[in-house]
Amino acid sequence: MRGGTDAPRVGIIMGSASDARIMRKAAAVLDEFGVAHEDQIVSAHRTPSRLAEYAERAERGGFGAVIAGAGGAAHLPGMVASFASVPVIGVPIMAYNDGGDGEGGRRPFSAFGGLDSLLSITEMPTGSPVAAVGVNKAANAALYAVKILATADERLRLLLGERKRRQHDAVVGASEEMRRTGLAAFG
Amino acid sequence: MRGGTDAPRVGIIMGSASDARIMRKAAAVLDEFGVAHEDQIVSAHRTPSRLAEYAERAERGGFGAVIAGAGGAAHLPGMVASFASVPVIGVPIMAYNDGGDGEGGRRPFSAFGGLDSLLSITEMPTGSPVAAVGVNKAANAALYAVKILATADERLRLLLGERKRRQHDAVVGASEEMRRTGLAAFG
Amino acid sequence: MRGGTDAPRVGIIMGSASDARIMRKAAAVLDEFGVAHEDQIVSAHRTPSRLAEYAERAERGGFGAVIAGAGGAAHLPGMVASFASVPVIGVPIMAYNDGGDGEGGRRPFSAFGGLDSLLSITEMPTGSPVAAVGVNKAANAALYAVKILATADERLRLLLGERKRRQHDAVVGASEEMRRTGLAAFG
Amino acid sequence: MRGGTDAPRVGIIMGSASDARIMRKAAAVLDEFGVAHEDQIVSAHRTPSRLAEYAERAERGGFGAVIAGAGGAAHLPGMVASFASVPVIGVPIMAYNDGGDGEGGRRPFSAFGGLDSLLSITEMPTGSPVAAVGVNKAANAALYAVKILATADERLRLLLGERKRRQHDAVVGASEEMRRTGLAAFG
Amino acid sequence: MRGGTDAPRVGIIMGSASDARIMRKAAAVLDEFGVAHEDQIVSAHRTPSRLAEYAERAERGGFGAVIAGAGGAAHLPGMVASFASVPVIGVPIMAYNDGGDGEGGRRPFSAFGGLDSLLSITEMPTGSPVAAVGVNKAANAALYAVKILATADERLRLLLGERKRRQHDAVVGASEEMRRTGLAAFG
Amino acid sequence: MRGGTDAPRVGIIMGSASDARIMRKAAAVLDEFGVAHEDQIVSAHRTPSRLAEYAERAERGGFGAVIAGAGGAAHLPGMVASFASVPVIGVPIMAYNDGGDGEGGRRPFSAFGGLDSLLSITEMPTGSPVAAVGVNKAANAALYAVKILATADERLRLLLGERKRRQHDAVVGASEEMRRTGLAAFG
Amino acid sequence: MRGGTDAPRVGIIMGSASDARIMRKAAAVLDEFGVAHEDQIVSAHRTPSRLAEYAERAERGGFGAVIAGAGGAAHLPGMVASFASVPVIGVPIMAYNDGGDGEGGRRPFSAFGGLDSLLSITEMPTGSPVAAVGVNKAANAALYAVKILATADERLRLLLGERKRRQHDAVVGASEEMRRTGLAAFG
Amino acid sequence: MRGGTDAPRVGIIMGSASDARIMRKAAAVLDEFGVAHEDQIVSAHRTPSRLAEYAERAERGGFGAVIAGAGGAAHLPGMVASFASVPVIGVPIMAYNDGGDGEGGRRPFSAFGGLDSLLSITEMPTGSPVAAVGVNKAANAALYAVKILATADERLRLLLGERKRRQHDAVVGASEEMRRTGLAAFG
Repeated sequence: MRGGTDAPRVGIIMGSASDARIMRKAAAVLDEFGVAHEDQIVSAHRTPSRLAEYAERAERGGFGAVIAGAGGAAHLPGMVASFASVPVIGVPIMAYNDGGDGEGGRRPFSAFGGLDSLLSITEMPTGSPVAAVGVNKAANAALYAVKILATADERLRLLLGERKRRQHDAVVGASEEMRRTGLAAFG
Repeated sequence: MRGGTDAPRVGIIMGSASDARIMRKAAAVLDEFGVAHEDQIVSAHRTPSRLAEYAERAERGGFGAVIAGAGGAAHLPGMVASFASVPVIGVPIMAYNDGGDGEGGRRPFSAFGGLDSLLSITEMPTGSPVAAVGVNKAANAALYAVKILATADERLRLLLGERKRRQHDAVVGASEEMRRTGLAAFG
Repeated sequence: MRGGTDAPRVGIIMGSASDARIMRKAAAVLDEFGVAHEDQIVSAHRTPSRLAEYAERAERGGFGAVIAGAGGAAHLPGMVASFASVPVIGVPIMAYNDGGDGEGGRRPFSAFGGLDSLLSITEMPTGSPVAAVGVNKAANAALYAVKILATADERLRLLLGERKRRQHDAVVGASEEMRRTGLAAFG
Repeated sequence: MRGGTDAPRVGIIMGSASDARIMRKAAAVLDEFGVAHEDQIVSAHRTPSRLAEYAERAERGGFGAVIAGAGGAAHLPGMVASFASVPVIGVPIMAYNDGGDGEGGRRPFSAFGGLDSLLSITEMPTGSPVAAVGVNKAANAALYAVKILATADERLRLLLGERKRRQHDAVVGASEEMRRTGLAAFG
Repeated sequence: MRGGTDAPRVGIIMGSASDARIMRKAAAVLDEFGVAHEDQIVSAHRTPSRLAEYAERAERGGFGAVIAGAGGAAHLPGMVASFASVPVIGVPIMAYNDGGDGEGGRRPFSAFGGLDSLLSITEMPTGSPVAAVGVNKAANAALYAVKILATADERLRLLLGERKRRQHDAVVGASEEMRRTGLAAFG
Repeated sequence: MRGGTDAPRVGIIMGSASDARIMRKAAAVLDEFGVAHEDQIVSAHRTPSRLAEYAERAERGGFGAVIAGAGGAAHLPGMVASFASVPVIGVPIMAYNDGGDGEGGRRPFSAFGGLDSLLSITEMPTGSPVAAVGVNKAANAALYAVKILATADERLRLLLGERKRRQHDAVVGASEEMRRTGLAAFG
Repeated sequence: MRGGTDAPRVGIIMGSASDARIMRKAAAVLDEFGVAHEDQIVSAHRTPSRLAEYAERAERGGFGAVIAGAGGAAHLPGMVASFASVPVIGVPIMAYNDGGDGEGGRRPFSAFGGLDSLLSITEMPTGSPVAAVGVNKAANAALYAVKILATADERLRLLLGERKRRQHDAVVGASEEMRRTGLAAFG
Repeated sequence: MRGGTDAPRVGIIMGSASDARIMRKAAAVLDEFGVAHEDQIVSAHRTPSRLAEYAERAERGGFGAVIAGAGGAAHLPGMVASFASVPVIGVPIMAYNDGGDGEGGRRPFSAFGGLDSLLSITEMPTGSPVAAVGVNKAANAALYAVKILATADERLRLLLGERKRRQHDAVVGASEEMRRTGLAAFG
């Protein structure tokens, strides 16, 4: 359990330990909002029998959303959504190889830039919806989960508004600096 | 206002009147669940000044979700999400031409199969999340909105479970029929 | 049970009744070889609890192969492969709409030409292999199943050889006719 | 204000400070032609309320063109074009990560090679045109802005002609060198 | 000469007579604004020697913009831009076959949805810019040409503003009707 | 043998009888130039043993070029090129279904717009070159074969020049008509 | 011969020596299962006359499967399948350049991410099936070969079950560790 | 002039000096066959007036083929083919940036993997054929030119045969080594 001693309100799952590098951005955003979350690895293909079990746990736990990251065939978000009534936010993952596979260096694992995963998450049949954010956009998935929780949580709605204002001010500040320094010298 | 005399709990918007052909599937699903909704046309490009106004209305109205359908450049879902804290569910729309354009017949309006719209909806920058369902999958967007509302509405959660069971039984029934008739004679 | 009164040696499954139009080509090929098959609808998303059950049945039944057709997100082949040790042959399906959906006419259901399904079937993680044939190529999937059975069945190997010879002769015959008539007049 | 003390004739905007690395090529070209420009960061999503304000400023300022660079969902060029009558030249940006994101190295931020942004810029609905140059081609966007200004500015038309001649001569010179050295030894 | 007896201010060219079906939308928009235009067929591949000649004519004629439509390899916009300093607006064309080719029916001529043409128009090398609108969006190309002319023509700027207001009002009207009739009954 | 009683100078082959609909355009162009050709069906997959035989025949026959049309996996052009030293011109074929397959109507056979075939023809390993024309562009393949023959045949070179002039004049004529009628009334 | 002194039960072939880097993962998996295999380089384009010979050898040798890796045009799997009745498992290969080609560094050889090879392997005409695993997924191809052999080999079926359990336990173990450490600190 | 003191029989052109890195592979192959060639830089966009001139020179010089390499919009091969009757072999170029552009490192210049260039070269209108080899496959373009010359040059035909045999023997040799060392230890 993360984000304090409260019962988790969001479940974060991913298909593989190597997805943690991307998915931890989701955890960081939830921590920023003080939203407790529970993080697990659930593989649609290596632990298929855990899918139903996890879905039940998500229902019983009263999660407001499940954030599910998966690369390649990316069946995890859709399979959890088929078992559970909780909204599932899918994160297509395009992983990178840092050279530890004996093939001699950094290269994409995914040949398709995450498009394979994005389509596998969104093209669900009518009746079993998953909603996807962009490739590797785990932080946006967490913000979306906060938006869902905020529909019934005034505190989160205020925090979202404050975050938006900080974003706005940061852009305006950078723009002012660009006008001062000129684009050529900026950054 | 649709779905009875209750205050609308979901907003349905679309970028163009021609999107109604797809988006009415979302309305039908919400009606099935007895979820009141408000339906509008808001064009990011033809009525840009209405974006902020609509977002405010969605906030004030306490909508649990906004379902935004858009084709082509499909800026509508992202722009509404930039103004509002309510979760926006994007529906990429690949429209078809039924011959009324003087060019002589049915053909896709969109040259890119909806991929342009899907990416324009999902590839939002960090801080302004939209979640997308598949191309033309307005019914799934509505079910996703119901899932969001159901996190705080036991009645909807039960209805979702019943719908899932009916789906299950329909598949099992069709499968039984296929085994009886054989695949060659089926359907 | 198809293909006579023998115990089925191949399982044919599909995610939706509408896939029968494509998948019946697989049944026809198996019938041609006198290979008994069992045909069912198993939906990864609408009947997720049947996945494990079907996989067990395929194992117990001693199937030599399972042919699994699926469109859109196409999770079915991979999910069955995750539960069963029997080889699964995936058929990506690009379905067509014949006008019965109230949207006014024939058009592809799938916006992505079946590429979404092809990648969802092949990009399985290491440890859970599925092998795919081309989009809508259900007949080839059945021939592949026969090739698998033929590794331990001399009769099927002979039939495969005969079929190959008939194909060869048909092409040579058509080529001779083309040389006689000339390409302009041919066909 | 860039390019001397004259009132700016072109506005350069970009969705993020990280786009400056690409967009400064536009500034360099305008400086080469002595065309004053005003450079700002305007984010469609983080500062949506500034869009209308910027568009008005562009109109009032009598800009001959606005060059708008944006990556990912790339809504900025289209949204400015929806508010303003000044021609907007869109630059799809495919950004690169230089390792500062804690994920361990250089890799593309954009999974789609800029195609997502190119389509989001060009597939605008009828009535709200944006014209796009190629991915990351900020220098060409600036040359296009000069071409627009040159329709009413003889000096710029002459400078464009001179530049074209210099380009021509540089190619001819390199070709002569290649013929001298041979292709194998060239370069 | 179109649009009255005034000297043409915009050149419309296309690579083939069959492109007229799409490009006449550009002519209609220019006529709406009272902008005289000159319409020609110039083929980069079938009349390559006319490219330089046309470019000179465009310069001498003082055109404010050239709208160049082309499908397939779509070299026309780029080649004219290489000879002329006038801004060229490229329109990628995805043509449809109406059955007159002896192959038996309607089908796309272009196998690539116009993406081939869009990239061939935008991916010009630095120094020879073309700006593209979306596939088949000839009307938007004409509006863009009007925007260019309007930077020095108050009458056109006012007409653009009026058109924008009419668009706005039409969307608001349709939205009101949708609220009255409900989405299910709309359209 | 086509094109008179001369020995054939070009071989036309295709992978399937259904490709004749496209490939006959190649025959028509060769006939126009009085170039004798020999037309056959050779399937890389259904008659693999004929590949070497055909290649030898093409060598012995002194063909100046082989035009090879193929759809789907499209291995035919590359396999012939691997056996023969004669230049092979590949024609990627995207076939259409005219409803005779029992699936109820016209639709593309190829899900990938011919891109699969184009890449399968061009991405040959170093050492075994094939050169491809565009999808379904059998007429261009024949013209390319004529260009190859014309490098040693003055008569063909003259005919190519005449054809080019006729093309030029046809375009100029259509352009003149467009200027007379105006684009709106043209065609 | 690999995997002990038994007669090989699986053939591994690849189109080029440079594919060994990927294909050795297949050998490693077969070794893990104690399945003897025979490894060769057979190039569809550089040794086309060996295709028939190899196919015969595979038949005579009683191989249960042939694993064929190929990049680029990737004709090898399909051509072997055209000659042999043994099931062929295709592995699309996207190779990487480690700088030894004189062009100055690491970069993909394949411009198309392996999609060209995947389609060239799967889009085989009806009658000549090949089944493909994902890009570079040689280990999965070997597991698929083991699944084929296991349909008639109880020992292999048990080993597959054990491997699946080890995979399951490894995922559960990693998930437990993630819950202990938290996602932020994990990995 | 390359390849000895003979008159050049093949022209090699490229759109930019930076293409020399790829195109010199074509020169090396022609040198290997003792085929004299003339190498130049001709830019369709920076030296458009040289296109007609170069085409005439190629005709007058009696070239058997022109090899034209071009990246991005890649108009060069098609434009030369529009002026000349000599067969043009197009080489789509996907260039890489070695860090000399001030943007901080190696990355692709082309966002589209050369597909843009491949389509721009092949999708020529009927009447103006170009034939393309694969992306960056300049060596194959040169071999194709040799194949064209060899239709009337016995010496070249013999050399092609010898080269094919050496290729064959090299593959067989590597395969033998793989069988000796085993795949795991190979390479």
